[in-house]
Amino acid sequence: MNPAAKHIGLIGLGLMGRPMGMNLIKAGYSLTVWNRTASRADELVAAGAKLARSPEEVAAASDFLLTIVSDPPALEEVLWGNCGAMPALKRGSIYVDSSTISPALARKIAAAGAERGVRFLDAPVTGGDWGAKKGELVFMIGGDAETLKEAEPILSVMGKKLFHLGPNGAGQTIKLAMNMILALQVDALAEALALTTRSGIAGEKLVEVMQSSMARSGVLDVKAPNLLKGEYVPSFPLRLMHKDLGLALDLGNQLGVALPATAAAREIYNAVKGAAKEDLDYSAVMKFWKR
Amino acid sequence: MNPAAKHIGLIGLGLMGRPMGMNLIKAGYSLTVWNRTASRADELVAAGAKLARSPEEVAAASDFLLTIVSDPPALEEVLWGNCGAMPALKRGSIYVDSSTISPALARKIAAAGAERGVRFLDAPVTGGDWGAKKGELVFMIGGDAETLKEAEPILSVMGKKLFHLGPNGAGQTIKLAMNMILALQVDALAEALALTTRSGIAGEKLVEVMQSSMARSGVLDVKAPNLLKGEYVPSFPLRLMHKDLGLALDLGNQLGVALPATAAAREIYNAVKGAAKEDLDYSAVMKFWKR
Amino acid sequence: MNPAAKHIGLIGLGLMGRPMGMNLIKAGYSLTVWNRTASRADELVAAGAKLARSPEEVAAASDFLLTIVSDPPALEEVLWGNCGAMPALKRGSIYVDSSTISPALARKIAAAGAERGVRFLDAPVTGGDWGAKKGELVFMIGGDAETLKEAEPILSVMGKKLFHLGPNGAGQTIKLAMNMILALQVDALAEALALTTRSGIAGEKLVEVMQSSMARSGVLDVKAPNLLKGEYVPSFPLRLMHKDLGLALDLGNQLGVALPATAAAREIYNAVKGAAKEDLDYSAVMKFWKR
Amino acid sequence: MNPAAKHIGLIGLGLMGRPMGMNLIKAGYSLTVWNRTASRADELVAAGAKLARSPEEVAAASDFLLTIVSDPPALEEVLWGNCGAMPALKRGSIYVDSSTISPALARKIAAAGAERGVRFLDAPVTGGDWGAKKGELVFMIGGDAETLKEAEPILSVMGKKLFHLGPNGAGQTIKLAMNMILALQVDALAEALALTTRSGIAGEKLVEVMQSSMARSGVLDVKAPNLLKGEYVPSFPLRLMHKDLGLALDLGNQLGVALPATAAAREIYNAVKGAAKEDLDYSAVMKFWKR
Repeated sequence: MNPAAKHIGLIGLGLMGRPMGMNLIKAGYSLTVWNRTASRADELVAAGAKLARSPEEVAAASDFLLTIVSDPPALEEVLWGNCGAMPALKRGSIYVDSSTISPALARKIAAAGAERGVRFLDAPVTGGDWGAKKGELVFMIGGDAETLKEAEPILSVMGKKLFHLGPNGAGQTIKLAMNMILALQVDALAEALALTTRSGIAGEKLVEVMQSSMARSGVLDVKAPNLLKGEYVPSFPLRLMHKDLGLALDLGNQLGVALPATAAAREIYNAVKGAAKEDLDYSAVMKFWKR
Repeated sequence: MNPAAKHIGLIGLGLMGRPMGMNLIKAGYSLTVWNRTASRADELVAAGAKLARSPEEVAAASDFLLTIVSDPPALEEVLWGNCGAMPALKRGSIYVDSSTISPALARKIAAAGAERGVRFLDAPVTGGDWGAKKGELVFMIGGDAETLKEAEPILSVMGKKLFHLGPNGAGQTIKLAMNMILALQVDALAEALALTTRSGIAGEKLVEVMQSSMARSGVLDVKAPNLLKGEYVPSFPLRLMHKDLGLALDLGNQLGVALPATAAAREIYNAVKGAAKEDLDYSAVMKFWKR
Repeated sequence: MNPAAKHIGLIGLGLMGRPMGMNLIKAGYSLTVWNRTASRADELVAAGAKLARSPEEVAAASDFLLTIVSDPPALEEVLWGNCGAMPALKRGSIYVDSSTISPALARKIAAAGAERGVRFLDAPVTGGDWGAKKGELVFMIGGDAETLKEAEPILSVMGKKLFHLGPNGAGQTIKLAMNMILALQVDALAEALALTTRSGIAGEKLVEVMQSSMARSGVLDVKAPNLLKGEYVPSFPLRLMHKDLGLALDLGNQLGVALPATAAAREIYNAVKGAAKEDLDYSAVMKFWKR
Repeated sequence: MNPAAKHIGLIGLGLMGRPMGMNLIKAGYSLTVWNRTASRADELVAAGAKLARSPEEVAAASDFLLTIVSDPPALEEVLWGNCGAMPALKRGSIYVDSSTISPALARKIAAAGAERGVRFLDAPVTGGDWGAKKGELVFMIGGDAETLKEAEPILSVMGKKLFHLGPNGAGQTIKLAMNMILALQVDALAEALALTTRSGIAGEKLVEVMQSSMARSGVLDVKAPNLLKGEYVPSFPLRLMHKDLGLALDLGNQLGVALPATAAAREIYNAVKGAAKEDLDYSAVMKFWKR
């Protein structure tokens, strides 16, 4: 099929959404976009995207809708708020959400879509803005295998790996589990660095030894420089990691699964968020010990 | 210098001490050993080591003493108990301890050694029994650079990397920081797997996605199979990891460094240790959610 | 004013709502009631209350509406669900909610009421079913002082103390703060009893000493017998305390106020809730150590 | 028996030891005292006590020895350090320790005493300096009933209640359990006040409501004014409460009893201790939220 014949809608033009949209345009798709702050669309519009006036307008123009917004309330507003997308989605279309939300909301959206003949995938991503630019995101997908098969050519433009993890909600569940682990890894590094430096030993020593040991990790490679330098330019913002820890704890508390270290870490991120004057990367959890 | 001219003493013939001793013998050193349970010495004696009747006898026979026992009380007993090693150490000899103990005890030993003209290095190791067998341990070393230089030929027989981290105590501080991180990484994986499986998704799915993401880690490669299968044959025993978390928290509480997630994780390891009927690997922290 | 001239609506006929309604009837008020499970209304209907078919019908019949349901979703359903109360509330009427919900939801309700000319008080209660029966509840009230003055004759029928704590939301904030403290007091007692009994000392000894010391408390008098006997007939159900801890943590995380011990305790209540086969009092947190 | 015929030794002349000694003198006992800082003995010496030059000298002069020092290392120094008391204790004498130490150390002392024909009671106290002055302390006692019977006339001079709780160690176990509860009650109040005040509501409102509810407690009456005013003149110093939490956690971790909220609270006290410039009451845990 000619990509240009497929009309794609994209709602949410943040750090992730913009490069994802750019890759769709480069692949030849016709793209209609919307963002709460319209100016964020400039680059995409210059590249050929059409700017809609509402989520509703995007949905009405699309065979395939993709949303990627900051949190559950933002997504609910986009779908069911004023001029929301849900009631305008076309029968037979596919809707993919790549925001990080609760599995319960993903299932609620799936049910609402099904009532209208719309097939839904929850498909949060990992890989950062860097992965979004390179088209090398990892998609964690919940939903129907047939739907995924049909969505695959489009998702493959943005990601290098598509993991089908189960029915709707499964993508979000795995995403929350992943982010718990990332948040705890960075917090563990911060606690260990606090202990090390307060003992009078340079943090670099700890990092150097770790890199030669089983304690090595992706997080260590990417985030240790931030913690050592105290520079926290947002790659994945702390406020979003804090939100995801809340979603993971909500899920654990619905299921009766105790998450003691996650709960402890969430309060540390919370303390840093409460004291922060600006938007910081989640590695700024280190500031808990540098107040 | 001919290695055989150097008399080495080795106290502590556990999972780590035995292969370390074997590598010293293979390198041509003359070795005198002692262990609380004497039968653990059989293999080394068969390979040419001399079995002493007390720590004192080992110390008296050695130019270079190495100890690697399970915890601080065991080391204090070896050094200052009945027929202990410390009063018998030879002036001018070098003493290296590779147990994991508190930095404070390492400094106390260094001071006691200095009074007798004995130079001390705290040099805990990482790399597991596998690294010990291959002679590929990583040594985290606190003490004098000159002493380390002199000890290097011997330590290099057992390890591939010798990190000099600062004065006495620095090796132990970094070791405790490392083990905090390992313990939290495994606990984080366990919390995430508990959330995933209780959500009805196979834990293997989470591990598979993690391996393609920034959440990948040395721990994931080595320990995820244990957690997924529920098989916890001790490689690094949970009771020792639990002890090391206690040492890290003691240090943090002496220094006034709060370690909230470490404290939360320690109680989980504690609960599992309290309920365990047998010796388990520290990855058995997963049992907290499978009771 | 003749109480009978005032039409009161009551939605939510649980452990608290039923005796509160009975006291209103005894005081001479005309009462219209609704409950999701209609059979719970039998006793009140027998005493003279009118049973409505929907929340909407209750609201339409009332000068003064009182709701007391189990959680925020239940209240949202009652107000804005099918045949909900909010759109039917009469201009000039007063609406008092005694459920425990988030301060944010209390403010949202207040705003929705104001749009319709309805004055709202958030007025959660403490005192248990026993206090409800005796008409000796404590009301924690957020809202306008004038409104409270008008509501006072009615609330005084059910409660012995009316604390006016600030604008809308303030009642709920204080209620959540109170329940955090109660939950932590009971958890602290449970942790201390676990330590005591595992040390081989009867828990009764600890309780006896506490009663002679500064560690005495209302919770100790009321809940210690439950913990000692292992009998947890619900007075205040664990599932509701667990929910309230979640609301308190949500509030803390919105405000950037870290609540580390509350977060730790919540996960213990969570573990017990997850393992419970039946409805238990919140003092059943003790079961965490008796699994 | 004439009290003056009984020679009592007292080691440890802090906030508690001084008034306890004064009550012994008033009751007519002959008293020999020692303190690391000798000037603390002035008042007692003026009242008739004899000042010894070492713990050894006190022990040698006493039929009944009482110690009350700040922590386990201080007690070990007093007993087994230079010119220590233990080797000088008279056969047939009674030794009572009212410090807060670990149950294990209490049992070790009991065993060492038994070897010398000395009967030992662990008898930590509660009631504060105020209770010490009034002779209204509560003693939590571990040891032999016969020994307690013989010690009772002397202990009754200082305390109004003597609880016999079990064999040696039992007094310390109950004391640690008590202090866990006190520490958590004060931390719970601090967390709740932080939530309340950050919500824009005066903390006094929370305290007022609590006093009318089941959340009332001895701690609330005594400590709430400190937290509200931010005045933390030491009554029971934070550094000692922090130490006792460490002893309780050590005990829990030896027994395999998880203490999650206690562990969380200990790290908060730790953070405040680490940042404190001066000696503060343990109610200063509130400073965690006021940095």
